[in-house]
Amino acid sequence: MPAVENHQIVLASRPCGLPDASHLQLRATPAPEPREGQFHIRHSYIGLSPSARIRMGGDSAYGAGIALGEMVPGQTVGIVSRSRHPQFREGDTVVTNGGWQEYSLSSGKSALLIDPAEVSHQDALGVLGTSGLTAFVGLTTYGRPASGETLLVSAASGSVGSIVGQIGLRLGCRVVGITGGPEKCAYLTQTLGFHAAVDHRAGDFTTALAAACPGGVDIYFENVGGTVRDAAWSLMADFGRVVLCGMIAEYNDMTSSNGPSWFPILSKRLVVSGFLLRDHLDRAQEYQARAMEWISQGQLRMRYDISDGLATAPAAFARMLAGSNFGKSLVRLAHD
Amino acid sequence: MPAVENHQIVLASRPCGLPDASHLQLRATPAPEPREGQFHIRHSYIGLSPSARIRMGGDSAYGAGIALGEMVPGQTVGIVSRSRHPQFREGDTVVTNGGWQEYSLSSGKSALLIDPAEVSHQDALGVLGTSGLTAFVGLTTYGRPASGETLLVSAASGSVGSIVGQIGLRLGCRVVGITGGPEKCAYLTQTLGFHAAVDHRAGDFTTALAAACPGGVDIYFENVGGTVRDAAWSLMADFGRVVLCGMIAEYNDMTSSNGPSWFPILSKRLVVSGFLLRDHLDRAQEYQARAMEWISQGQLRMRYDISDGLATAPAAFARMLAGSNFGKSLVRLAHD
Repeated sequence: MPAVENHQIVLASRPCGLPDASHLQLRATPAPEPREGQFHIRHSYIGLSPSARIRMGGDSAYGAGIALGEMVPGQTVGIVSRSRHPQFREGDTVVTNGGWQEYSLSSGKSALLIDPAEVSHQDALGVLGTSGLTAFVGLTTYGRPASGETLLVSAASGSVGSIVGQIGLRLGCRVVGITGGPEKCAYLTQTLGFHAAVDHRAGDFTTALAAACPGGVDIYFENVGGTVRDAAWSLMADFGRVVLCGMIAEYNDMTSSNGPSWFPILSKRLVVSGFLLRDHLDRAQEYQARAMEWISQGQLRMRYDISDGLATAPAAFARMLAGSNFGKSLVRLAHD
Repeated sequence: MPAVENHQIVLASRPCGLPDASHLQLRATPAPEPREGQFHIRHSYIGLSPSARIRMGGDSAYGAGIALGEMVPGQTVGIVSRSRHPQFREGDTVVTNGGWQEYSLSSGKSALLIDPAEVSHQDALGVLGTSGLTAFVGLTTYGRPASGETLLVSAASGSVGSIVGQIGLRLGCRVVGITGGPEKCAYLTQTLGFHAAVDHRAGDFTTALAAACPGGVDIYFENVGGTVRDAAWSLMADFGRVVLCGMIAEYNDMTSSNGPSWFPILSKRLVVSGFLLRDHLDRAQEYQARAMEWISQGQLRMRYDISDGLATAPAAFARMLAGSNFGKSLVRLAHD
């Protein structure tokens, strides 16, 4: 077997605002050989996640930063191409945190074996991946939905938001999604079955949102921050729960903007909770079992926004941060 | 029995800022006679509560407003002076919501019978009254303190805050109080046994607060809002809980000010909860039983700020809203 060349994307400089080719650069390295207890994976897809943007800014309260010259982290799916590990064999499909590169090594730790007859590579990274688990943990643990309650989701056509809304539907909620543009709104109501969708780019956004939530909002699943959050905030019902999962609209800002007034927390007896997936990884099996059942019944699906080739990752990442993607952003690797 | 004259304080006009004699006026009315199933109470003390200020502003998200010409509501303690009720007899000591007046009628609904051999009239309105119950419900239900955790309380020498801190001590917390001025700080550490007290009027407040909470704040019991809240916010520890009980610093404002950035909610996985006592009145018996035990052991006490005569109520109320009181504000009625 001749030595294989691996390509990866590394952080060349820290972005201020949206990252571009000056911050994220392609580098060629030899593909590493597995030692005893390891296996070698040829990635088919890399999943792009907004949280990587925070880590590009350096260490923060959110977690450790990516060092300059270091590869960008990310979840991957691929085929085991060579194994010196007892449980993973050549040809197995595995999900790992392989990073933004073509090949990776794994010791099997936190690697998830996938049956490709049951789940596509895309769904393995999408519905069953960190986005889906994030949606499930956030909604069930912190949103605590009851049948008949109104669930409002921002970034609703995105990878987390679309799963939050669909799980809400399965649990009997009235589901309203906030997204950008008429095409995404139609996707939410017509394809996913949301009860209503509101376009945050439309001029009448605030009025339309209030009209879509006539009884107020019992659960607000917050993915974006900024003005969308403030509009949702004014509609919270008594005893409402706000689940804070992300604030993508504010990740590129260098300043930390104020939140809304705390008066409604008191007068409406709200609970505002934040969570990070890393504290809840022990719930992956529970989620995957339920998600597999919903997927097989056609009740849980995700749309993917695919860009081809590792070199397209930086542009696809910037497009996602700008909200121009439509569905979970994946980079497909051809390996020709 | 000759007809008795009753005096009460009514809302004459809506205040903007601190209320004064132009907003709150004394009125003489005949003392009402009890009908069958009612009893007549001669008040000994009226408790002043900041929430009355919100209701003076009119209807709000916080609750119904006080109509112009209507008496100001408030909790009272007193002696049954005439009864046509089977369970309440002449000479009984009762706590009721009698309002800012000398005499009231009660049907017994939500009236609490007090044994004056066990509890003073002051403690009946203070430690055992709504302030104490508010402290107990907020801390145990929403703060969920664990032994060894750091509990930070604002308005710590006030009626709610001082009880929050003392219950925290009984439950094994490291308790830090925020209050105004060296005298109140000394009261917290020397009389009540708080581990530390920080003066929010001192020039080095932010630095001193951080030094008093070296491991961060696990529970912040929030009574005031404004800049004190913002200083506490920056010290929250991972998985911290913020219990929002009041925002007295903002009650006189006509505008609703912004809250702090939501980033820490996400990065530190915080839970911010608001509550109103009226949703938790069913816990009064549980609290009173525990409080009586702590009182008898000398482990729960309250300081009172007493002003004499109904006519002093408006000035005492304004003094409390301005933070110039020291202890639970009570108006004592002489009945000579």
